[in-house]
Amino acid sequence: MNKQLLFVKRPIGDADATTWELASNPIPEIEEGQLLIKQHYVSLDPAMRGWMNNSKSYIAPMEIGSVMRAGSVGEVIASKNPDFQVGQYVAGIGGVQQYAVTDGQGYYPVDPKMAPLPTYIGTLGMTGMTAYFGITEVGKIKEGDVVLVSGAAGAVGSIVGQVAKIKGCTVVGIAGGADKCKYVVEELGFDTCIDYKNENVATKLKEYCPKGIDVYFDNVGGDILDIALTRLRRHARIVICGAISQYNNKTAIKGPSNYLSLLVNRASMQGMVVFDYADRYKEGALQLGTWMAEGKLKSREAIYEGIENFPETYNRLFTGDKKGKLVLKVIE
Amino acid sequence: MNKQLLFVKRPIGDADATTWELASNPIPEIEEGQLLIKQHYVSLDPAMRGWMNNSKSYIAPMEIGSVMRAGSVGEVIASKNPDFQVGQYVAGIGGVQQYAVTDGQGYYPVDPKMAPLPTYIGTLGMTGMTAYFGITEVGKIKEGDVVLVSGAAGAVGSIVGQVAKIKGCTVVGIAGGADKCKYVVEELGFDTCIDYKNENVATKLKEYCPKGIDVYFDNVGGDILDIALTRLRRHARIVICGAISQYNNKTAIKGPSNYLSLLVNRASMQGMVVFDYADRYKEGALQLGTWMAEGKLKSREAIYEGIENFPETYNRLFTGDKKGKLVLKVIE
Repeated sequence: MNKQLLFVKRPIGDADATTWELASNPIPEIEEGQLLIKQHYVSLDPAMRGWMNNSKSYIAPMEIGSVMRAGSVGEVIASKNPDFQVGQYVAGIGGVQQYAVTDGQGYYPVDPKMAPLPTYIGTLGMTGMTAYFGITEVGKIKEGDVVLVSGAAGAVGSIVGQVAKIKGCTVVGIAGGADKCKYVVEELGFDTCIDYKNENVATKLKEYCPKGIDVYFDNVGGDILDIALTRLRRHARIVICGAISQYNNKTAIKGPSNYLSLLVNRASMQGMVVFDYADRYKEGALQLGTWMAEGKLKSREAIYEGIENFPETYNRLFTGDKKGKLVLKVIE
Repeated sequence: MNKQLLFVKRPIGDADATTWELASNPIPEIEEGQLLIKQHYVSLDPAMRGWMNNSKSYIAPMEIGSVMRAGSVGEVIASKNPDFQVGQYVAGIGGVQQYAVTDGQGYYPVDPKMAPLPTYIGTLGMTGMTAYFGITEVGKIKEGDVVLVSGAAGAVGSIVGQVAKIKGCTVVGIAGGADKCKYVVEELGFDTCIDYKNENVATKLKEYCPKGIDVYFDNVGGDILDIALTRLRRHARIVICGAISQYNNKTAIKGPSNYLSLLVNRASMQGMVVFDYADRYKEGALQLGTWMAEGKLKSREAIYEGIENFPETYNRLFTGDKKGKLVLKVIE
């Protein structure tokens, strides 16, 4: 049998136990051109909250009754598709279920001998690609830049900051809690980190970036984006990657009141979606993998177990009760 | 005697009669290196409201008691500066006064035989440069783009839209009132114009730009910026030139709630200040002047008279009671 998590109700505000239902269905037979994947791990991402809304976005909204959309990695256990062989490991968007049937579109091979499987949905997957192309191509970092990263202990933010350090930037993180800030500085090598739960972000930002910031990589939106806007240097770039502080709003989201700082400082604010770099994923994964092998880049996953624990694991994205990339093991 | 308008009180909200005082002072003697200019026209611009605030911006705040800052054009009537000759006409930042003494810095010669004097503080001055470099360099327009321009009947907006038409774009304006919209379409050649005072901007924008917009040139901010954000095409560019709807706010300005449309559409929002293009003003003026001579570009000034009428003329910037570039003749 195939345990699947079905998306059954669009949440208003926070997703909760009524958003999903666990189902158990027979593993389907595959047809010509298809393959069957035994899924080991699924990826949990803040973007999931957006996919649940019935509104126009960069990807179609999830349909009620469908398997919860999620990145995943697993083993091919049957194949009638010449591009995939039994025993091969692959990553793709397999959803929150134990077995996935697909025609292979969007799937690509991964090598468990090169890196642990969860890494392929983290640092060497969409998460890493988002961080790498976001900070280099949209943020356009160069040596000597002062870079601010929110969600610094999170999946994307932790990689963004490390890449910026490798590229010779001064990097300031923002994270929730002293423990996370310690991790960001001592383990990940950021220059400093602001604890937004216990420190005054505006005051600390002024202290840590007395000359202002060249790049702000924003994962959170809300008040922190507004504070960052007050500290822009001339020609600064803001990368809009996400706005986790606003995803569960029941009312209109908070727009950045200080956006006219873009005018004063001839600065820009640009959005990004990782899919635009699909033809360069190999290049990104090779670079990040090389840095990992050289010991310059740390990849950390927070791995939880049990498909039935998806809702409470998902919740950690918003409570912040985890470090690094959030991953769920869905099969024994 | 030299009639001068002094800035005597920082306004909270709207500027009013108490913001300025008219003074009459002797025309100063010039010293070695200086020149004396008899000023004919001064420029009135929404940016003036920002200069009155005591806050960090792209230019120092005006000091209390100083001559009101303004672009100006006039005739050199005395010179102890080898770069300027008596009888020459010059433009610069001479302030709201009848006679200006300067060391010549920031002044450049203009030719009243080529164009009427007010044009040199309008289409061939900072206004034209803002429009030209804003829409071409920041907006990066290309043939076939759908371009939206707010403040379309105003000084900058009217030029932006005409330049975009010359460059082969489809151009939609937004202006206040049926009369202005008629002017924008029939006189300036925009494809369509939305009357924000009497029409539903969101509905009309959808009707006029069914496939969305590639570039939004924003002079107004507020609700119209938020509506424009809902209609972005992929890789759209928003040029933040101004936010006249917010300049007289007594509370925090309204940030664009729909800014996450930048993410969804991989779009950017970038601020601009015309001074950054100072080394290319000649190129810009030559291009705009050529288009004017060819009859492709219309330049319109709304000229009022009398330095004592500055406050009520200034007020027209915000009531919108004028078309084109607002200019005040300050001398007989």
